[in-house]
Amino acid sequence: MLKHPVFLTLRRTFCAAHRLYSDALSPEDNQKIFNKCAHPHGHGHNYVVHVSLRGEPDPTTGMIMNVSILKELLETHVFSDFDHRHLNIDVHEFQAGLLPTVENIAIVIWNRLYPHLPEYLYAIKVEETESISALYYGPES
Amino acid sequence: MLKHPVFLTLRRTFCAAHRLYSDALSPEDNQKIFNKCAHPHGHGHNYVVHVSLRGEPDPTTGMIMNVSILKELLETHVFSDFDHRHLNIDVHEFQAGLLPTVENIAIVIWNRLYPHLPEYLYAIKVEETESISALYYGPES
Amino acid sequence: MLKHPVFLTLRRTFCAAHRLYSDALSPEDNQKIFNKCAHPHGHGHNYVVHVSLRGEPDPTTGMIMNVSILKELLETHVFSDFDHRHLNIDVHEFQAGLLPTVENIAIVIWNRLYPHLPEYLYAIKVEETESISALYYGPES
Amino acid sequence: MLKHPVFLTLRRTFCAAHRLYSDALSPEDNQKIFNKCAHPHGHGHNYVVHVSLRGEPDPTTGMIMNVSILKELLETHVFSDFDHRHLNIDVHEFQAGLLPTVENIAIVIWNRLYPHLPEYLYAIKVEETESISALYYGPES
Amino acid sequence: MLKHPVFLTLRRTFCAAHRLYSDALSPEDNQKIFNKCAHPHGHGHNYVVHVSLRGEPDPTTGMIMNVSILKELLETHVFSDFDHRHLNIDVHEFQAGLLPTVENIAIVIWNRLYPHLPEYLYAIKVEETESISALYYGPES
Amino acid sequence: MLKHPVFLTLRRTFCAAHRLYSDALSPEDNQKIFNKCAHPHGHGHNYVVHVSLRGEPDPTTGMIMNVSILKELLETHVFSDFDHRHLNIDVHEFQAGLLPTVENIAIVIWNRLYPHLPEYLYAIKVEETESISALYYGPES
Repeated sequence: MLKHPVFLTLRRTFCAAHRLYSDALSPEDNQKIFNKCAHPHGHGHNYVVHVSLRGEPDPTTGMIMNVSILKELLETHVFSDFDHRHLNIDVHEFQAGLLPTVENIAIVIWNRLYPHLPEYLYAIKVEETESISALYYGPES
Repeated sequence: MLKHPVFLTLRRTFCAAHRLYSDALSPEDNQKIFNKCAHPHGHGHNYVVHVSLRGEPDPTTGMIMNVSILKELLETHVFSDFDHRHLNIDVHEFQAGLLPTVENIAIVIWNRLYPHLPEYLYAIKVEETESISALYYGPES
Repeated sequence: MLKHPVFLTLRRTFCAAHRLYSDALSPEDNQKIFNKCAHPHGHGHNYVVHVSLRGEPDPTTGMIMNVSILKELLETHVFSDFDHRHLNIDVHEFQAGLLPTVENIAIVIWNRLYPHLPEYLYAIKVEETESISALYYGPES
Repeated sequence: MLKHPVFLTLRRTFCAAHRLYSDALSPEDNQKIFNKCAHPHGHGHNYVVHVSLRGEPDPTTGMIMNVSILKELLETHVFSDFDHRHLNIDVHEFQAGLLPTVENIAIVIWNRLYPHLPEYLYAIKVEETESISALYYGPES
Repeated sequence: MLKHPVFLTLRRTFCAAHRLYSDALSPEDNQKIFNKCAHPHGHGHNYVVHVSLRGEPDPTTGMIMNVSILKELLETHVFSDFDHRHLNIDVHEFQAGLLPTVENIAIVIWNRLYPHLPEYLYAIKVEETESISALYYGPES
Repeated sequence: MLKHPVFLTLRRTFCAAHRLYSDALSPEDNQKIFNKCAHPHGHGHNYVVHVSLRGEPDPTTGMIMNVSILKELLETHVFSDFDHRHLNIDVHEFQAGLLPTVENIAIVIWNRLYPHLPEYLYAIKVEETESISALYYGPES
């Protein structure tokens, strides 16, 4: 148990294309459900990612975790194949048909970071536009 | 129980006038408590509303709920008589004397949306200015 | 002539109600032109004002003008009767029928500040919402 | 000549994919110049567009131009085939090889709007990310 | 127990210098851990503080607490010796060697405000830059 | 003469400490003029710098200048000794007594970048806080 739990959040952005279109649905249903997001050649966003850790400041350094380590983990395990890419085509989780909605992007980023931060990772928030965001705290336990 | 609960947030703005003045208080007390907010002809704000849902992404669509449905619910049940209105005069909840503070605005928006989103609605946040906001998760159960 | 002209900008916010409705127009035209802004009891905004001065940094203080003086001028000559007020009712320039559009608000603020900053005042920008702003550099000379 | 020229700015966003890759350059040069922006399947952005008009407030309406008309012009002549599209593929100006850099996007939006606002259009600003923007005042005359 | 708990948040900024360097570590370790933050003469930030209260709106005033009281508590107990100061030198909690990381700043602000808001204080969030923030809900109970 | 002049702006932030205190003034005058900014151990800010270039998009690349080159010039000639430093102590222009006001910081950044961008540099804007910024277009010619 932590005596003084603090939540540290890192905010970073990446730019990517995506398209919302499901082969399991008819073209009409795709159009009805996804509307402009189903346009054949895709579109894109400046995604804003907030990675939140939970921990206790180290008595010597005053830090939960060195932010430079967190930046590197995010770069290595997520941004290296998310940033300046087409999510449906370039990111393996979405190649098999999982749709890159903002909800699923948050889950995928969590799944990629969790093994490297099992005692720290608390939440992933992803903003897709100024109006829409998703927040994920990991699977229910 | 949800296996992968995700929180989806929609951010929208409306513009309204309001006045903080209670007939249950003396003019002096109104002035002392509400200060500039008690000016007789009211003032106004660009209110920012964040509606948060809790749910699990649908396996086919990747969505907790289609954001266009959520926008329509917010438009129909809240913005239609909040936006470009005087809250004290045009909104029935505040006509009877409930003061349109940012706290009460958050509660009223919750109460209007909850019947239409009983399994999804998680939180309402309202920003009144760059400095002040209120957040409501519904009544304590 | 200034050798090193620098433009210094102060950003401040005020909250006010207003209504766009002209007695010189029919009710139908008011509705057509001003739409929601014509609602009878008015609405409101968090207005953001940017006051820009043009000058040369003083060799001793490094300042064009002490920002605390500029804040006081803005408070005394503008915000004292704009902030937390109803512009149409409480501000004399708008009482006589000049409509408090964002364009006219910028002009009125310029006219109030210019006599106190004749050698410095360069521009007034007013943001009414996140989407709409007006900028005024004074009358054409 | 305008006696009281005011600049009115409308801010709107659109989401699009694009790719920076020139067939006139070798693959190596494309990589060197455009780096991540040259990835084969493209990426995307939330573009923010600021349309600025120059005019004088109408004495009756207090407006340079009704913002709803400006929104409609921007929707009809620009956003209808920019928003939720792939700029290189879906926008005819960029299909022939003109690269959709932020500089060229600003010029293309100007060229589309100018015929409909010849006496008003003053500037087009486009923000591609939080860090990069382009501003265009039309061709030098 | 509160029937309608609402969370009210006040956002305020202060400007301060700080330096991350621990006498308990070698110069090499300081450089490795704190990098640019260890530069001998310090650097600084515009810190953004969010104070969140939890309570129920008063039936008469519609407020959890008068925001002007909260501003005054923050001014008196925190900003009076944080704002426009060097945290390591001017703030007693950090004079004895506790490092003014964003995590520790959040804890110190909590500790200063809690005695004055024991039934209300819910969270302190501190943003150090656009990328880094810390959030503290008080000691684990 | 450029046929299609476009203005390209890069936005970057640096963190620094500074102090406004002039040895040419009495302690009383320093206190009166600079107030909190004169505190003996200094304070600090997250400064936001906007570098604007003026040029014409290259027909092949669509760019006025490769933004990666501009970032490197800003890093090499400005941020390398501004970022995470104490401006009065670590930056030679301010060591000799020129006060690091936001106005002078804008001029110093211009003077450092201009020799490397003589045909392109158009403006330097520096934001010191959310409320104060300075803009410099170079010396009057």
